Amino acid sequence: MSLKEFRYDGSWAVRIRDLPTGAGRAKADKQMLIEQTAENMQEAAVLQEKLYAQGREGLVIAIQARDAAGKDSLIKKVFGQLNPAALEVHSFKSPSKEELSHDYLWRINRALPPRGKIGVFNRSHYEDVLVTRVHGMEKSYAMPERVTEDKDFYRKRYAQLVSWERYLYENGYRVVKVFLNVSKEEQKKRFLDRMQLPEKHWKLSLGDLPERALWDEYDDAYEDAINYTATPESPWYILPADNKWYTRYLMSELLLKVLRDMAPEYPPISAEEAEQLPAAIEQLNAE
Amino acid sequence: MSLKEFRYDGSWAVRIRDLPTGAGRAKADKQMLIEQTAENMQEAAVLQEKLYAQGREGLVIAIQARDAAGKDSLIKKVFGQLNPAALEVHSFKSPSKEELSHDYLWRINRALPPRGKIGVFNRSHYEDVLVTRVHGMEKSYAMPERVTEDKDFYRKRYAQLVSWERYLYENGYRVVKVFLNVSKEEQKKRFLDRMQLPEKHWKLSLGDLPERALWDEYDDAYEDAINYTATPESPWYILPADNKWYTRYLMSELLLKVLRDMAPEYPPISAEEAEQLPAAIEQLNAE
Repeated sequence: MSLKEFRYDGSWAVRIRDLPTGAGRAKADKQMLIEQTAENMQEAAVLQEKLYAQGREGLVIAIQARDAAGKDSLIKKVFGQLNPAALEVHSFKSPSKEELSHDYLWRINRALPPRGKIGVFNRSHYEDVLVTRVHGMEKSYAMPERVTEDKDFYRKRYAQLVSWERYLYENGYRVVKVFLNVSKEEQKKRFLDRMQLPEKHWKLSLGDLPERALWDEYDDAYEDAINYTATPESPWYILPADNKWYTRYLMSELLLKVLRDMAPEYPPISAEEAEQLPAAIEQLNAE
Repeated sequence: MSLKEFRYDGSWAVRIRDLPTGAGRAKADKQMLIEQTAENMQEAAVLQEKLYAQGREGLVIAIQARDAAGKDSLIKKVFGQLNPAALEVHSFKSPSKEELSHDYLWRINRALPPRGKIGVFNRSHYEDVLVTRVHGMEKSYAMPERVTEDKDFYRKRYAQLVSWERYLYENGYRVVKVFLNVSKEEQKKRFLDRMQLPEKHWKLSLGDLPERALWDEYDDAYEDAINYTATPESPWYILPADNKWYTRYLMSELLLKVLRDMAPEYPPISAEEAEQLPAAIEQLNAE
């Protein structure tokens, strides 16, 4: 399967329950795909340097997933191969009191990378239509009733997200959204690992367990979020997450595709500097 | 030579002009030291993960150097081997109008990593006693005359820096300062490279050239900055920078030493969670 099959730009409706969570037939090509991942990342690193040098366009990759779907290790293994000077990773936790006292995009805007850099969001603005929706948290937010009681609350949020991402696109950014699709069975395995291996205890939060019981509610919330916010400029990618090597491969393909689309180039020196250059070289050589 | 010989904690006066800029006799061990660098970084990455998991102590590594001493490539090659989720690289440029309208540590404080992360400063608070001093910039700053005309202006800044770094130390941070010591001859070679290779033109700023004429003034400024601000808690390391593989080796040794001193450990789960754990495992297994 090629990356294209995991891409959703809003032109048809996605049904999460029908999508693959594992590598499937790609398992036969595992070694080849692991090598391809390394090659992809080398090319991506070259493009990242040009993107940074040019400083003209910014990239945001928002990663959403259920607990233990592998967000952290994906970021470490894939984005860890880029230059950290031109990369910003932001992990969004439960909003703080200060964050909650602002509109939900306030903290996201503060974490936006400058143009020329790649920003990776570990969780993102989509939490506000996922966990918030599943738990009906908006009802308890300090906002006017015309907002919290609006029966179109989430429809409006989806439209706001589309609008915000379009605004960024029109201002020199690209926002790409990724959902790591893990199966319930694989999540169980990973939870048990965390529980049974002391060096993984720090990643353990027993508070995550009750979320498993809300699996279907999350499916619905993801499905709506994706269907209402996928656009050609800001597509969603739903990547199977049960086999980490495969998720990494697909993420490297995705990153490479986006960077190639952005087509960054080293900026030329100014006409003025080009004119001064021969004299400067001569002067240095004469020292 | 071991790392210790490049460490300055204020117990004796450093003279920049007497210090090595190249690998010297270590050249004979080049292959071994390159392998050691890789090993060091593997251990450093493990310690970084513990540091992040524990979230108890923060680390700032401030890197200062002349142009073309190799700050960017050092950050890419050495810190690029750490997990970007627990790493923040900040490049400090000429201060903006907003930054200049505040005290000089204002922008530095804003860039401070949270505890648990490693912050790498590409240039730092030391610019304010280096380039500022060499060019007498403080005279033109919008500050009261009692400040700008104070003949002890820089002595006071050194003391402020010591005091600020001690404040951080007393609040769960370590600040380590690094000076990459490049020779005038090697800088010339690298400048010529930038001038003659189009793909390096973007790193070229002809405005850097006149700074070469101020080589001795920078030596003096670095010497004072280092001698007045090196402390056992916040030492300076002056690393030879003419041979990049050697600088990387020494930086990996430095990073490893600091992380070992910090001795991070994975945090244990709470007593409450430990008590709930067997039931949670049973419940998951029974699903």
